[in-house]
Amino acid sequence: MPSPDEHIHPTATGAAAQTVASHSAPTTDGNELVFWSGWFCPFVARAWLALEEKGIPYRASGFLALRSEVAEEYHNAEYKEVNPYKKEPEFLAISPKGLVPAITYRGKPLHESLVICDFLEEAYPDTPSLYPKDPYDRAQVRLAIDLVGKSFLPPFFRLLQSQEPEKQAQALEEVTEALKKYSKKIVGPYYMGSQFTLADIVLAPWVARLPIVEKHRNFSASAVGDKFVQWVKAVQARESFKKILSEEKYYEEIYGRYLRDEAMSEAAKATRAGRAIP
Amino acid sequence: MPSPDEHIHPTATGAAAQTVASHSAPTTDGNELVFWSGWFCPFVARAWLALEEKGIPYRASGFLALRSEVAEEYHNAEYKEVNPYKKEPEFLAISPKGLVPAITYRGKPLHESLVICDFLEEAYPDTPSLYPKDPYDRAQVRLAIDLVGKSFLPPFFRLLQSQEPEKQAQALEEVTEALKKYSKKIVGPYYMGSQFTLADIVLAPWVARLPIVEKHRNFSASAVGDKFVQWVKAVQARESFKKILSEEKYYEEIYGRYLRDEAMSEAAKATRAGRAIP
Repeated sequence: MPSPDEHIHPTATGAAAQTVASHSAPTTDGNELVFWSGWFCPFVARAWLALEEKGIPYRASGFLALRSEVAEEYHNAEYKEVNPYKKEPEFLAISPKGLVPAITYRGKPLHESLVICDFLEEAYPDTPSLYPKDPYDRAQVRLAIDLVGKSFLPPFFRLLQSQEPEKQAQALEEVTEALKKYSKKIVGPYYMGSQFTLADIVLAPWVARLPIVEKHRNFSASAVGDKFVQWVKAVQARESFKKILSEEKYYEEIYGRYLRDEAMSEAAKATRAGRAIP
Repeated sequence: MPSPDEHIHPTATGAAAQTVASHSAPTTDGNELVFWSGWFCPFVARAWLALEEKGIPYRASGFLALRSEVAEEYHNAEYKEVNPYKKEPEFLAISPKGLVPAITYRGKPLHESLVICDFLEEAYPDTPSLYPKDPYDRAQVRLAIDLVGKSFLPPFFRLLQSQEPEKQAQALEEVTEALKKYSKKIVGPYYMGSQFTLADIVLAPWVARLPIVEKHRNFSASAVGDKFVQWVKAVQARESFKKILSEEKYYEEIYGRYLRDEAMSEAAKATRAGRAIP
């Protein structure tokens, strides 16, 4: 039986579709960077933000389901949309869990959103850095990444998927608490000050998903605090953020499945099973 | 009511005690590095291995319970033993979750084992590196770190703490599966080849804890595979690893609480609640 998630909207829409279209020419920098993507995935959005912030060349072809010809094509520098719910063998060879984002760089595969971001940072040292220079400041970015991964994401998915009001209330409290901790450290306008870093990128994709929990789960950004509200605005105004946004109605469609606890993504299944997000 | 974990053996023993003793002289490198530690904690062991591998100066004072004078002393470069089960306000100011390891570097606090390791890497650039040079190889180290954190640690703690045979069997299968995935990538003798990296350090502390699950939970290193058995031997032979080992009987004592599911560490409580390890 095909999972309902297989039939997600097939391509990026809105500004994201334009970004894909504007990256349709072959790259000329000599690196073969293929971006295995899915417009709907917040983890993809992290890697996509890093690519856009750094101005790293990639060619966008913009399809979702992995087709047989992709295996032959994957040495070309292209943006690829992948349906992670269909674990095609060609894609599993690139991303062992079948998850997006993944990249192939000069034919070599890499997965995990944050590993990809760090790789882009180190493989393209002449592009704008996503870390501060000072080692102690860099550690603060890594603490923010740790906080988002351990304290924000698990309750965020529980908040989406929980059906019982008490469980929703508890998850909401944890989400708000985690964002308060994050906010306490925001220098402004971005987390580390004027530089847009991985501390922002790690959480920024959820800025586009907060309207879902505001509408359906009583989340309130202003309950987190004014610093957080200001940070959200700064992220929303960031060029890279605007460029990877699809139309809101499609997020609504995707997240409807989470809100009814019908989603079959690996994150949704792990959350349902009380396990760590893979 | 005091938790039983408050009464753990107060100091490092065996080789670890000697290491502490041999670091009792004040540091002379101009950096104030205080190592907030606990001999029993595998996450502490990661940071300790990094310190030893890099030969970074620290002074060992070797006590466990946080005493009032510590707050005054913490600008001195010292190894400190902390009882993370007693959340002393002085220590919470350094490590917000009250967890070890933590360091203070020139008076500035930092926590999280892997954040500390990366910080040591970047703040002491002239010491032996814990990463390969090539960006793609560095990404492989980070994938190993990700694998250990997401796929090995959660079932390892469930394996320790589960009381029902079926749950133990499932956790054992997951632990073995995660280590098989890790082993597949071992170049030998270490994960990345001849260089001892963070890919080794992230898992090495559990080499000292595998005898517990071998004895009480049917874990078998040879069931993981020969490559893993060889890697375990290489880690056991590593100077830094030998230097931070306490006597086996004290690990037995600590882990007895896990095996009876009585442990009150944050990792134990999170595992019991089906939550991510903090």
